[in-house]
Amino acid sequence: MNFKEELSEYVKIVNNELEKYVRREECPETKLNSSMEYSLISSAKRLRPILMISSYKLFKKDFESVFPYAVAMEMIHNFSLIHDDLPAIDNDDLRHGKPTNHKMFNEPTAILAGDALLNNAYLVISEDLKKENNPERLKLKINAFSELTFGVDRMIAGEYVDTEFEGQEISNEYLEYMHNNKTGALIRASVRIGAILAGAGKTDLEKLTNYAEKIGLAFQIKDDILSEIGDEKILGKPVGNDRKLGKVTFVTKYGLEEAKKMLDDVTNEALNKIEGYKEKGEFLKELALYIKNREK
Amino acid sequence: MNFKEELSEYVKIVNNELEKYVRREECPETKLNSSMEYSLISSAKRLRPILMISSYKLFKKDFESVFPYAVAMEMIHNFSLIHDDLPAIDNDDLRHGKPTNHKMFNEPTAILAGDALLNNAYLVISEDLKKENNPERLKLKINAFSELTFGVDRMIAGEYVDTEFEGQEISNEYLEYMHNNKTGALIRASVRIGAILAGAGKTDLEKLTNYAEKIGLAFQIKDDILSEIGDEKILGKPVGNDRKLGKVTFVTKYGLEEAKKMLDDVTNEALNKIEGYKEKGEFLKELALYIKNREK
Repeated sequence: MNFKEELSEYVKIVNNELEKYVRREECPETKLNSSMEYSLISSAKRLRPILMISSYKLFKKDFESVFPYAVAMEMIHNFSLIHDDLPAIDNDDLRHGKPTNHKMFNEPTAILAGDALLNNAYLVISEDLKKENNPERLKLKINAFSELTFGVDRMIAGEYVDTEFEGQEISNEYLEYMHNNKTGALIRASVRIGAILAGAGKTDLEKLTNYAEKIGLAFQIKDDILSEIGDEKILGKPVGNDRKLGKVTFVTKYGLEEAKKMLDDVTNEALNKIEGYKEKGEFLKELALYIKNREK
Repeated sequence: MNFKEELSEYVKIVNNELEKYVRREECPETKLNSSMEYSLISSAKRLRPILMISSYKLFKKDFESVFPYAVAMEMIHNFSLIHDDLPAIDNDDLRHGKPTNHKMFNEPTAILAGDALLNNAYLVISEDLKKENNPERLKLKINAFSELTFGVDRMIAGEYVDTEFEGQEISNEYLEYMHNNKTGALIRASVRIGAILAGAGKTDLEKLTNYAEKIGLAFQIKDDILSEIGDEKILGKPVGNDRKLGKVTFVTKYGLEEAKKMLDDVTNEALNKIEGYKEKGEFLKELALYIKNREK
């Protein structure tokens, strides 16, 4: 399998797992469940679950034990998107070319669907912990759970800083802090959780954390570039909004050319971090390039 | 100690525990932390943590191991209040006589503070699981964690049904479903988590679940009565709003006198459920009466 085939294989696997957690029975909260499904079951990239799986696969072959954590991560990612898009926060009407959750349903439903996705992520994890009888594996899984709570905590902090400073001058230090947390935290947590579940040692965990931080930054820079010069049809949302809203992004702060140069540099740094894994690290290398070259 | 003294002793203990989790260091998200603290550190009743502690104490004396779960429960209760009060949901300006979170701060901050409190609850639990070395106790704690995720799931579903059917005719069946979940779920989870952590058996757990369901219902009926004829000064919020908003409550649906009779009946049923515990159940009995007789 080449990279693209392997990637789309993983996307299928993740989508298949997510399907298992969708509740479709008739009940008084059917519309709430539909609203959660609407955001969760989409043509998304599934980048975070795939990072988790491929980081795990550096150390072990069978990756089924990662699934509940991959599902939880994607639920949390979607919770964050739904709340991000709310009128009180980013007030976005479109996401992946479709109406945002509160546009498709309504605001109270979107707020509660986000809440429920966040909680459901932990529900999935608690079910997995209950079933684990091996004390060693249980320990690893509890560490993964802890890593996830920490990542979400940082992600919300980053989102808050983004909201708080919208339309204001912001120091380089704060911009970095915001991105490290808002986009970086879940990407870092994904890579780390994969490695933790596989029982990776301290040195490997450090190396992979460094890699994750670089691709997290690359992801954000690329997002900012696409938001400025992307193709609206491919992107599924209007271009140029960041500038109009007075958002501080890598492009509005450093200019387009400098942002592109930064993207090249951090991607190369990411690749350097995992050079030692040779062929085993091939997929993670390709993922870094994919983040840099993506058009949506 | 009489009931009131014991109650206020527990309130002090819970408040003291909550204080430990407040983050006051200077950082870019300082205002988000203040917003979480604003809701969490208040003159609240701490009913859910106290139910958890007293249910645990039916079986065991030392109750320190309950603390992280009691703290998590109170964080989650406050997350639900903050999101409940939002303009898109109940649009309330006052809570416990003080401006609601989004009035004191702003809407994006309140949304994110609610999110962060929900996540922090699980962060606290994951830290506790990491520290637990005894396999038997770890198993109980994981069950407690699972019970909590389930309770929150039901609470959000109940809140959704409340939102969805506001101002509409609603069947008795749906009204019961809504209350069982919205108010009942966290009360039931609190009582059950206390018993689970103490290693209670199936029979005890069933008895206490029945008790919890009755006091949960009593709590909601009393809430509806206070919302109709309570003292605004003691209550800290305006009276009569449910009727104005077209909310379906036990009072608007059955009338004040019938609601009072229902409150008496379910309180007596709650007392019956725990008769078997004799003196050990005294505090839980007093708590049921306290829920019935409270003025706020």
